Amino acid sequence: MSGPTGPAPFLQACRRQPVAHVPVWFMRQAGRSLPEYRRARGNGSILAAIAEPELAAELTMQPVRRYGVDAAVLFSDIIVPVHAVGFGIDVEPGRGPVVEAPFRSVDDLRRLRPLEPEADVPYVTEAVKLLVAELDPRVPLIGFAGAPFTVASYLIEGGPSRTFARVKSLMHADPGLWSALMDRLADLSGAFLRAQVEAGAAAVQLFDSWAGALSVTDYERFVLPTTRRVLAGVADLGVPAVLFGVGTGELLGAMGGAGAGVVGVDWRVPIDEARRRIGPDVAVQGNLDPAVCLAPWEVVAAEARDVLERAGGAPGHIFNLGHGVLPETDPGVLGALVDLVHAEGRAGVVP
Amino acid sequence: MSGPTGPAPFLQACRRQPVAHVPVWFMRQAGRSLPEYRRARGNGSILAAIAEPELAAELTMQPVRRYGVDAAVLFSDIIVPVHAVGFGIDVEPGRGPVVEAPFRSVDDLRRLRPLEPEADVPYVTEAVKLLVAELDPRVPLIGFAGAPFTVASYLIEGGPSRTFARVKSLMHADPGLWSALMDRLADLSGAFLRAQVEAGAAAVQLFDSWAGALSVTDYERFVLPTTRRVLAGVADLGVPAVLFGVGTGELLGAMGGAGAGVVGVDWRVPIDEARRRIGPDVAVQGNLDPAVCLAPWEVVAAEARDVLERAGGAPGHIFNLGHGVLPETDPGVLGALVDLVHAEGRAGVVP
Repeated sequence: MSGPTGPAPFLQACRRQPVAHVPVWFMRQAGRSLPEYRRARGNGSILAAIAEPELAAELTMQPVRRYGVDAAVLFSDIIVPVHAVGFGIDVEPGRGPVVEAPFRSVDDLRRLRPLEPEADVPYVTEAVKLLVAELDPRVPLIGFAGAPFTVASYLIEGGPSRTFARVKSLMHADPGLWSALMDRLADLSGAFLRAQVEAGAAAVQLFDSWAGALSVTDYERFVLPTTRRVLAGVADLGVPAVLFGVGTGELLGAMGGAGAGVVGVDWRVPIDEARRRIGPDVAVQGNLDPAVCLAPWEVVAAEARDVLERAGGAPGHIFNLGHGVLPETDPGVLGALVDLVHAEGRAGVVP
Repeated sequence: MSGPTGPAPFLQACRRQPVAHVPVWFMRQAGRSLPEYRRARGNGSILAAIAEPELAAELTMQPVRRYGVDAAVLFSDIIVPVHAVGFGIDVEPGRGPVVEAPFRSVDDLRRLRPLEPEADVPYVTEAVKLLVAELDPRVPLIGFAGAPFTVASYLIEGGPSRTFARVKSLMHADPGLWSALMDRLADLSGAFLRAQVEAGAAAVQLFDSWAGALSVTDYERFVLPTTRRVLAGVADLGVPAVLFGVGTGELLGAMGGAGAGVVGVDWRVPIDEARRRIGPDVAVQGNLDPAVCLAPWEVVAAEARDVLERAGGAPGHIFNLGHGVLPETDPGVLGALVDLVHAEGRAGVVP
């Protein structure tokens, strides 16, 4: 364990520096798996909860208090900026983002004006400020945004998709419109990340959750340049950036060169192999299968140890799940997992 | 083009023998993308259509007549055997397989008695016989079954799943029950494949569509042994077997050793890289992104040529999509694709 005044292990690991212990946090750690979350959230909409800074800050803090994780992640959603500029998008409980009038033509670009954070999402910067005041400095706050492709997939498909047929159709049939859409979304994501960092977030994560639906060729042609632009646009802020997606095994070489200091991977690719594909100058985050957390503890422990061992060959590992915490997860298992990672992780640990 | 009496290019490619042209067929080529299919099917249930041999044979023949593909694939469904033994499963249009009472405990094993093909699925063997009588021998009929893991995922989750949380929970929490379930499903799949081949199918495909949701470790421990058993159980029939799944990039080494002569891959992994991972003694099938077929023809042609070029380094390539034909696909595009593959494919082609 680091001393009470040492630097933040999460930030050190992002920079592939030596750490006192391997840092750990969980995507969607602030969520339905926690009874205190379900109590505090009640039945209101997620966008309403995000718009209440005190509530968003409380929901963000809950897993930090309970688990002793090494980072807080702002309670927010990837659709917040497109919702805030009035595109017409909502979150349907149990389904995900849904769009009443999906993006179809050049006329729809008008529905994606630039974000003015002070006017459009004052509640987000307010929540960040409340959190920075409350958090131990060794537990940095991670701000986040959806990457343009993943946000575009919701706008075009109208909701969650299994095939991404419409979004792929658009990029192939009308590369000019695709590019214009990606540019708008890059501006929105960039402005959203910048606002969070300027309010005090110490790191950012760019969620390109569904990029793994693409072939390498399509990813490199239609997605990577915009992703690069978003990351380059926040590079001057000097905070670590994590680029994350699911099922990205074949894209990791490209993602490693996108400009993020950390690439997050799911459980499909062993983390040592992921590190090899991502390249030597980038840290890795991951990658226990969230479904494994529903297994008996011996199984969880064995699979977590496997991740730690595979990642232990070099500095720069942030332990995480390969995707968000499942709502049916026992919080006791996540708590024990934090303890195990802190006790047994070896990636970059100073003996 | 092969002469009118030459051997079947599909079967030759499966055996990595020289071919007159690279063979091509499409998963779900008999389906909603065809107007003649929509006319013939009407609004009846898919299981009802499968149970009418003349209709199933007609639906199977439609894409063969229209496209000149190198293989017919029986109009059927992976849930046919579990439905036939009375597990209590149906197909909901637009959603997929749904189970009223999902598999939960050892008691549910009773709902999976062995398949007696003559009594339980006489319509399937009858359809196969009708087709074998009608088909040109150079256009073999492919029979198929769901692989135990993928069928189990529907039985346990109760329907299509994004997380596979319940099926993974069961395998980790109760490996004995998991193994018993997989054994039952292996027997069902094996008997179903055998019945189709004995009726005249010239090749089989085992659909482990969702295996890519698993980590390599879980796949090798909980799935591969049973998959191997199914394939070994039909090896004496002397027909080629294709093992297919989506998002299997990291599993290809294991799948290459499962005992299938052909491994089918989706579009996420470039097919030359897939071949490298699968190993030298196995043919590859794939792997154009079905969503690319919705793009303008120049894009389709360029991406198809890329697949042909990458696969062309060695014999043993069957051109296919990386997953099923999307319902919104223009049949004219698939027809043009067949012509392109026949004219330009080079994998194992005798000049």
